[in-house]
Amino acid sequence: MIISMYPHASKAQVESVCARVQEFGYMPYPLIAEECVAIGVIGSGDLRACLEAVESMPGVEIAIQISAPYPFVSREFRPQSTRINVNGVAIGGSEFVVMAGPCAVESESQILETAEAVAANGARLLRGGAFKPRTSPYDFQGLAESGLKLLDKARRATGLAIVTEVLGECDVSLVADYADMLQVGARNMQNFTLLKALGRCGRPVLLKRGMGATLRELLLSAEYIVSHGNPYVVLCERGIRTFETATRNTCDIAAVPVLHELTHLPVILDPSHAAGKANVVPMLARAAVAVGTDGLLVEVHPCPERALSDGAQSLTIPAFRRMMQDLTPYIQLWKEQREIAVPVHA
Amino acid sequence: MIISMYPHASKAQVESVCARVQEFGYMPYPLIAEECVAIGVIGSGDLRACLEAVESMPGVEIAIQISAPYPFVSREFRPQSTRINVNGVAIGGSEFVVMAGPCAVESESQILETAEAVAANGARLLRGGAFKPRTSPYDFQGLAESGLKLLDKARRATGLAIVTEVLGECDVSLVADYADMLQVGARNMQNFTLLKALGRCGRPVLLKRGMGATLRELLLSAEYIVSHGNPYVVLCERGIRTFETATRNTCDIAAVPVLHELTHLPVILDPSHAAGKANVVPMLARAAVAVGTDGLLVEVHPCPERALSDGAQSLTIPAFRRMMQDLTPYIQLWKEQREIAVPVHA
Amino acid sequence: MIISMYPHASKAQVESVCARVQEFGYMPYPLIAEECVAIGVIGSGDLRACLEAVESMPGVEIAIQISAPYPFVSREFRPQSTRINVNGVAIGGSEFVVMAGPCAVESESQILETAEAVAANGARLLRGGAFKPRTSPYDFQGLAESGLKLLDKARRATGLAIVTEVLGECDVSLVADYADMLQVGARNMQNFTLLKALGRCGRPVLLKRGMGATLRELLLSAEYIVSHGNPYVVLCERGIRTFETATRNTCDIAAVPVLHELTHLPVILDPSHAAGKANVVPMLARAAVAVGTDGLLVEVHPCPERALSDGAQSLTIPAFRRMMQDLTPYIQLWKEQREIAVPVHA
Amino acid sequence: MIISMYPHASKAQVESVCARVQEFGYMPYPLIAEECVAIGVIGSGDLRACLEAVESMPGVEIAIQISAPYPFVSREFRPQSTRINVNGVAIGGSEFVVMAGPCAVESESQILETAEAVAANGARLLRGGAFKPRTSPYDFQGLAESGLKLLDKARRATGLAIVTEVLGECDVSLVADYADMLQVGARNMQNFTLLKALGRCGRPVLLKRGMGATLRELLLSAEYIVSHGNPYVVLCERGIRTFETATRNTCDIAAVPVLHELTHLPVILDPSHAAGKANVVPMLARAAVAVGTDGLLVEVHPCPERALSDGAQSLTIPAFRRMMQDLTPYIQLWKEQREIAVPVHA
Repeated sequence: MIISMYPHASKAQVESVCARVQEFGYMPYPLIAEECVAIGVIGSGDLRACLEAVESMPGVEIAIQISAPYPFVSREFRPQSTRINVNGVAIGGSEFVVMAGPCAVESESQILETAEAVAANGARLLRGGAFKPRTSPYDFQGLAESGLKLLDKARRATGLAIVTEVLGECDVSLVADYADMLQVGARNMQNFTLLKALGRCGRPVLLKRGMGATLRELLLSAEYIVSHGNPYVVLCERGIRTFETATRNTCDIAAVPVLHELTHLPVILDPSHAAGKANVVPMLARAAVAVGTDGLLVEVHPCPERALSDGAQSLTIPAFRRMMQDLTPYIQLWKEQREIAVPVHA
Repeated sequence: MIISMYPHASKAQVESVCARVQEFGYMPYPLIAEECVAIGVIGSGDLRACLEAVESMPGVEIAIQISAPYPFVSREFRPQSTRINVNGVAIGGSEFVVMAGPCAVESESQILETAEAVAANGARLLRGGAFKPRTSPYDFQGLAESGLKLLDKARRATGLAIVTEVLGECDVSLVADYADMLQVGARNMQNFTLLKALGRCGRPVLLKRGMGATLRELLLSAEYIVSHGNPYVVLCERGIRTFETATRNTCDIAAVPVLHELTHLPVILDPSHAAGKANVVPMLARAAVAVGTDGLLVEVHPCPERALSDGAQSLTIPAFRRMMQDLTPYIQLWKEQREIAVPVHA
Repeated sequence: MIISMYPHASKAQVESVCARVQEFGYMPYPLIAEECVAIGVIGSGDLRACLEAVESMPGVEIAIQISAPYPFVSREFRPQSTRINVNGVAIGGSEFVVMAGPCAVESESQILETAEAVAANGARLLRGGAFKPRTSPYDFQGLAESGLKLLDKARRATGLAIVTEVLGECDVSLVADYADMLQVGARNMQNFTLLKALGRCGRPVLLKRGMGATLRELLLSAEYIVSHGNPYVVLCERGIRTFETATRNTCDIAAVPVLHELTHLPVILDPSHAAGKANVVPMLARAAVAVGTDGLLVEVHPCPERALSDGAQSLTIPAFRRMMQDLTPYIQLWKEQREIAVPVHA
Repeated sequence: MIISMYPHASKAQVESVCARVQEFGYMPYPLIAEECVAIGVIGSGDLRACLEAVESMPGVEIAIQISAPYPFVSREFRPQSTRINVNGVAIGGSEFVVMAGPCAVESESQILETAEAVAANGARLLRGGAFKPRTSPYDFQGLAESGLKLLDKARRATGLAIVTEVLGECDVSLVADYADMLQVGARNMQNFTLLKALGRCGRPVLLKRGMGATLRELLLSAEYIVSHGNPYVVLCERGIRTFETATRNTCDIAAVPVLHELTHLPVILDPSHAAGKANVVPMLARAAVAVGTDGLLVEVHPCPERALSDGAQSLTIPAFRRMMQDLTPYIQLWKEQREIAVPVHA
């Protein structure tokens, strides 16, 4: 069950409802954010009696019975799609949002050159890793805080919002000091300690699907963040691991409509990691727009062959420009669809 | 190596070239079809000497060294995309070709009603199985030859070309008597006896990717058909088997641009088997058009809930109509792209 | 439901029971083999009434309600494990049966040398392909009937029984003329036309699991063979296709106890294809014995580095000898277990 | 390259070697532990000159060129298998080490009863989670520090060493205060922040393979821990995620011999997570012993049907006793093999 409170509900009212719920043997999970005051209710007891008792309490708008195991992120709770505001850019609304930039921040000139180029070609967020999760301990691990400072500089220079990865719970507040949106990488999708720490952090989170994770698990990981207090989560499909080796991962394009049916959260797609090869990226980007994803996360590097990571899948700046031009009519169709869109139901 | 002969090359010229090639220790695979006379050359020997010796022989247009293990279907051999003519419908050219119909032919009224509806909404081929590969021996196995006769009736009534599955080498000539195009199902993609039999049959073949098969294996299976004499092969991505269970299979959308880069053969997509759920099909169809596939294979049934197979993934006739309307602007973009298209190279 | 008839039941009695079953709206699948007379009953109707009506008919021993979708091969039908007799060798009984030999029959000396060596070291069946399913049309396709003749020669020389692959339904009778057991390769596990043809053939069948097939699908493919008249099926786990590339396939060792629980048919393991590397084969063989498999299918070649196929995974003759010595104490334990074994139930 | 220092090498000597290595443009990774003083050398430069320069320096025993991307854990560096001492129990030596206990510590009586039972039946370590990584935020998350205290109590009562999971870098020192060995769960195998923190912690680590991780990635994750200062790592195969659903995961039994060939670290197997069903666990355990694994990690619960997690795969105490009896002759064979064992090379 989820209890939706009126936006003006007082803290005391929320607490009373929580107390009442506990009397019925349930566990309440209050979620108080800017545009959302709600209480998730988990456990087993006399559901009907609890619903009735709660609905008449002051501050309660409605109490909804929810069958999905991820009540807060489920579309049952919130039939309308959620828009996540990232430093002025709304993801999940009427704008198709492109996030672009290098895999890793490598130097001031690299990040500034890339930021200016992607901003000039329609990107709204700058991506770039200061803390890099690398399979080998001997690979480039990122510039850490100095990388964050360069991202900040690029933000000032271009007006782009910043999305960057956080690797562990101890770094959350440091990264949140610089970034507009914190990214959870695929390898950390089930790092529950990190997810809980992000739940206590006010910043929007970009949650990437694990390469061996089901969509159900992705939604439960999002539920970790939301139930711990942070409703601002954007999901990201980035390809899953299969037996096929012609591409780095297998882009699960159907994940987009399936997620849009199950959750009210925005869903974007990362064609760079899905493909692993720069020449396949623009085609996956087109498919992503057509399938109704809310945005893209794309790797762009001024000189991919000298990139310290992910060079093979990074677009050059001219290739990014061509891709954005190529996408224009598809994004136009996307906007027309979006205007008449109603939530997809099974 | 592939030796491309002039279209007017005589049989004797082809034979002389084959004999010369054998003198160098290679094995020749002659391919003589309407618009294609070529000789595949396999083995190891003095390649340079063989190339030179052959290039000066009468009837020889050019001899090309090819590194792919599937020389005939490789784009190295034929940089221009191949158009496959199926009873007047060209697949791989400037038309986006939709093949639609029920999973299985069940009755005269079912197949005629479906045929008329899909024809009226833009399909060019009618699909429908008379021989059904079913996981369980106790499931409906198809109407066999009477099913083929009903397909023939539907063709006469609507002008649609017919594509239908053949299950074993012994049925090839029977099915070829009725069908315009013979389908090899995913479970038979590496039934090499069947592939060889189809190589000796003049009819176009629709080769579906096995659910556990790599793209390389798909291309090698196509090479079986072509090297045994039949160059008219269309490839079909239909989803692969992964750990994800939210959809029946995982639609490998990147397979389309990857295959377009590796081969000159047309590539279509089957969103019905990929999704396994009717409500996801239209979105995958959109992605398929955007990604540049040459056509679609879609399951449509007048009454999916009473279908003898694949009901859950079949579109109703109104849903098919809506999907085709929804696809119209995407197909328009597809046509504009196609006109300016040059083969995609790595 | 399965109706078990008395071994001495007459053909007329079987026919009467079939007719009675049809009156209740069910479909009967009679199976008449040396040691087994039974009727599978499929469909929906008044089950209780049908059971009662049938149980009192002459020739009927017992009628059992079965919930598995593969009634004939299910352990619900036959709690006792089935022994399959292959030219005097019983698979599934108190002997651990090793089948060994080259991937392909290449020459008289190769097959005779291998046959003598494996016989001398404890193998009871000789494996060797005369018809080879090769991913590429340009790879060695086998010696066909002359290969079968060499296998026959090897059988006369050594007394080993012969197991060899059949690729298509048209070759079943030819291969059955020479072989003691017909193998269905992984790529053909769902070649239903072939399975039906093998159902009509009296010879024991070795059915290999498809590399993308679930255990449920394997059992349904076995059910095809049995329900079409041939109860002599041995199942073979040979590794499945996953994302891991350190081995050629991933040996699903748990398949053995799971299958032993679900079916009364014998289950053997092919460590050669599972591993893809000769040095890993002996360890997988040990695991297979420990886990209670009924036998092994192993590739052995007198000179693996010159083998026309599967060289990397073939044991040399000395390596096979060492493996058999190494397995001796494990097989001893296997025999002790087998003597006290009762069927594994969930 | 790895530079092996003499056990008595002084800190100053190690520092001199590191400095010399840097002059050649390489990056040194010193590893100073009880029985191991070594320096990993990564980067590119004049390898031959660097090797020669270093080999003559005081304190240097030998400098070895290593091709594997995980030099410290590679068998190239240390041909002899490593024994890891966990509170008096040596893993990787001549004893087959069984670790057993509940998925989660739930109460004093539950953990004490289990600890006594597994100790009485041959286990040497007690497993049990105080911090639980659960897919859903609403599932039981463990007793945290009070769970650790109960484990300590069980250790005092039984003499068993304790292995328990640590979920995040902030908890490492807390868990290390109580545990003899720290477990990294499958979902955290690529939580690099945690791996680095464990590298700085003196305690032995049990590193479980991620369910979507290759063996190469597992070894690189182990290399993270070792290169950050902690050489005491035991690897654990626990099944990978595939399309098969008959078992919870697919036990990659071949991982054991493959890892034993590639690394000198001990390798154990967790049959409980691999199977997901209690009745399959004993058979996988047998296979694990036969294949030469260094030990087992098994879930045991006094009352599985009331377990707060993983009940379906937990053995009852009597079932654990039966399994240990059943394993006895296999462990006897294991010991005989171990005595004559030499490292397996390709």
